Amino acid sequence: MIRLSTSDPAFDRDFTALVNARREVDADVARDVRTIVASVRDEGDAALAAFTQKFDGHDLHATGWRIENSEWIAAYEALAPDLRAALDLAAARIAAYHEKQKPADSDTTDSAGVRLGARWNAIEAAGIYIPGGRAAYPSSVLMNAIPARVAGVERLVMVTPTPKGEINPLVLAAAHIAGVDEVWRVGGAQAVAALAYGTQRIGAVDVITGPGNAWVAEAKRQLYGLVGIDMVAGPSEIVVVADGKNDPAWIAADLLSQSEHDPTSQSILFTDDAAFADAVAEAVDLQIGLLSTAKTARESWDTNGAIIVTATLEEAIPLVDRLAPEHLELACDDPQTLFDRVRHAGSVFLGRHTPEAIGDYVAGPNHVLPTGRRARFASGLSVLDFMKRTSFLQLDPASLAAIGPAAVALAETEGLPAHAKSVALRL
Amino acid sequence: MIRLSTSDPAFDRDFTALVNARREVDADVARDVRTIVASVRDEGDAALAAFTQKFDGHDLHATGWRIENSEWIAAYEALAPDLRAALDLAAARIAAYHEKQKPADSDTTDSAGVRLGARWNAIEAAGIYIPGGRAAYPSSVLMNAIPARVAGVERLVMVTPTPKGEINPLVLAAAHIAGVDEVWRVGGAQAVAALAYGTQRIGAVDVITGPGNAWVAEAKRQLYGLVGIDMVAGPSEIVVVADGKNDPAWIAADLLSQSEHDPTSQSILFTDDAAFADAVAEAVDLQIGLLSTAKTARESWDTNGAIIVTATLEEAIPLVDRLAPEHLELACDDPQTLFDRVRHAGSVFLGRHTPEAIGDYVAGPNHVLPTGRRARFASGLSVLDFMKRTSFLQLDPASLAAIGPAAVALAETEGLPAHAKSVALRL
Repeated sequence: MIRLSTSDPAFDRDFTALVNARREVDADVARDVRTIVASVRDEGDAALAAFTQKFDGHDLHATGWRIENSEWIAAYEALAPDLRAALDLAAARIAAYHEKQKPADSDTTDSAGVRLGARWNAIEAAGIYIPGGRAAYPSSVLMNAIPARVAGVERLVMVTPTPKGEINPLVLAAAHIAGVDEVWRVGGAQAVAALAYGTQRIGAVDVITGPGNAWVAEAKRQLYGLVGIDMVAGPSEIVVVADGKNDPAWIAADLLSQSEHDPTSQSILFTDDAAFADAVAEAVDLQIGLLSTAKTARESWDTNGAIIVTATLEEAIPLVDRLAPEHLELACDDPQTLFDRVRHAGSVFLGRHTPEAIGDYVAGPNHVLPTGRRARFASGLSVLDFMKRTSFLQLDPASLAAIGPAAVALAETEGLPAHAKSVALRL
Repeated sequence: MIRLSTSDPAFDRDFTALVNARREVDADVARDVRTIVASVRDEGDAALAAFTQKFDGHDLHATGWRIENSEWIAAYEALAPDLRAALDLAAARIAAYHEKQKPADSDTTDSAGVRLGARWNAIEAAGIYIPGGRAAYPSSVLMNAIPARVAGVERLVMVTPTPKGEINPLVLAAAHIAGVDEVWRVGGAQAVAALAYGTQRIGAVDVITGPGNAWVAEAKRQLYGLVGIDMVAGPSEIVVVADGKNDPAWIAADLLSQSEHDPTSQSILFTDDAAFADAVAEAVDLQIGLLSTAKTARESWDTNGAIIVTATLEEAIPLVDRLAPEHLELACDDPQTLFDRVRHAGSVFLGRHTPEAIGDYVAGPNHVLPTGRRARFASGLSVLDFMKRTSFLQLDPASLAAIGPAAVALAETEGLPAHAKSVALRL
């Protein structure tokens, strides 16, 4: 963890280094992924089975390729009542939030008599990637599948690696709740390629979303354009802006809730109170050893954590904008005033009683958010990622007479005579 | 040009081949682009000057790096009155259409007492790529720059190669009309890299849009994630669905308006009238030789053109959906009935008096549209490409008590104790 203060003479240099530090793994996976993707494109299921044997250690022909709906229902019915209620509550709230994202069509006729508008349609098929093993999160199933379902996607396909054939029943239960249509026991770059190209068994999809390791992320990046993808995702991060009136233990827990995800995760505290900064640092040290995730959390906090003391909370906001964090907590008396001045953040959590983790699970907004400063230009996952817009025009002889001559003039000056002629013939 | 009929026994096979035919150049540009991008990242303006000398044949230090505002104004003032009026009309109509795309923020408190919503902000800086030389189109400047301006982007940077130092004054005039802030004399993959990383002279941007050759497209694809991009673009295409009551010359001109763009462009006619199909084919042959773009148009039409006879116009619609064309004309008495059944198309032109070219210039909707079957999942360029959404949440002790326990249960089952603790401490 580094400590900075805006009053340090070297602050600008040190903060710029923090902003520019790359936490993303630069492993040379691109070449391996190209090979895997080409194999699946050319050989389909045979390649998929071979890579699954190699990387996940099981024989798809023995374990079965697809996990049947009856297994998901069984997993759902076997849930402890409080967990079932929690997943049902989360699903209902996520659906309600995303329902409001559905865009409106437009269809108007302007003063020149030109009818013009736009119509939104759902994509036909979406694929969601859900990691297996340690990071098999039912919340990821809900967050990726429900926006697709709300958008109106007809075919919702989930792929998930099942190392040695094993799968987390909570993930299956979440697939059942979220209304997934197919679940396939495949993962890695090979599963992403199968979704993009289609194989003998797995039908191709139009959009692929969902979290994954560096191979999965690189496969999505390489296949972007053949299919739509959600985003290029990196390690998760939180920035907390807190005054000295917070309980240090609460803020320490918030910081650790990102640190425990991955050694590359980042947690940053801005505060205007140096004594509070000390108290939070102590509370982190106290809590961290008690976590079952202590090893990961400690590596992340030691390597990427930061506490920055500012003269005022307001002074933190332009610095936050430079970080453009995935998650931003504003833990102070009047968070709205600060929030009004924030421009770049994936999701913002206002006030002392809004820990970031509430947004990871049950609040409603999506937890798939832009990382690595991408909140400067990207948004969290939404219904729009599973829809597309068709614009349309309709002119009649009068409206074409009104605006057509301008089109002819421009087409001629651009050296496109057939463009000009197609309008001029109708004038 | 190929002729197909849905009554042919081999139609399914032949049409599937047409759908799957790749018209995109498979040149191995990726490696060259990686080299260029890395050079500009590491060496900045020195690399930019060297590549410009090599590819565009001029010395940036001699010609100047930047084209000053006074030159754009001079270009605008030197426009012939009808051209100036045409560009002004186009700009006003494009701005009016895109103004309606601005998304609404949301901010509500639900029955559990949870405040939740989303706020849209413009990105700070956008870069638009405008090709130089033969395909230097002022309409591209308007179509890329105006949505950015409407979104509220503060800094709008245009890059355009000026082969041997020359630039099309119409492009400069369009930059002036569209409210561009900076114009730089650089192009190719090196210009895209300069926009993404920034150099000593050119400040980095957040989103890069605009048409370009295979090198430009590949550079955008490689830099996607560091910056936002509009889309992976391929050769343009038109599908016309027309009954036998159309003037064959009009429909021929519409088909040729795509063919003349590039040898890889594609024009396809669906009609329920075999005699009309013959008449259009003849009209194409008659018109094509008269075009100044004859060579390109003929190569495109001969290689990629198609005329498909169907039993009814309705029969064409599912076939159109499989093609998911960039442009779709519905030239018949009741285009709305057909349009209601279309799902995948970038932009649709309804009725006999709506040639596609009217949408290229002055109608208002954007002419930057998904190609190569990407209308299955992608949309045309819009204000949304220059904005991003921040979700937000605010809970109080009562609302956290209502939904917090479910978050604790889910965090615990996912093995994330700090997530659970950050909520539980506040309950």
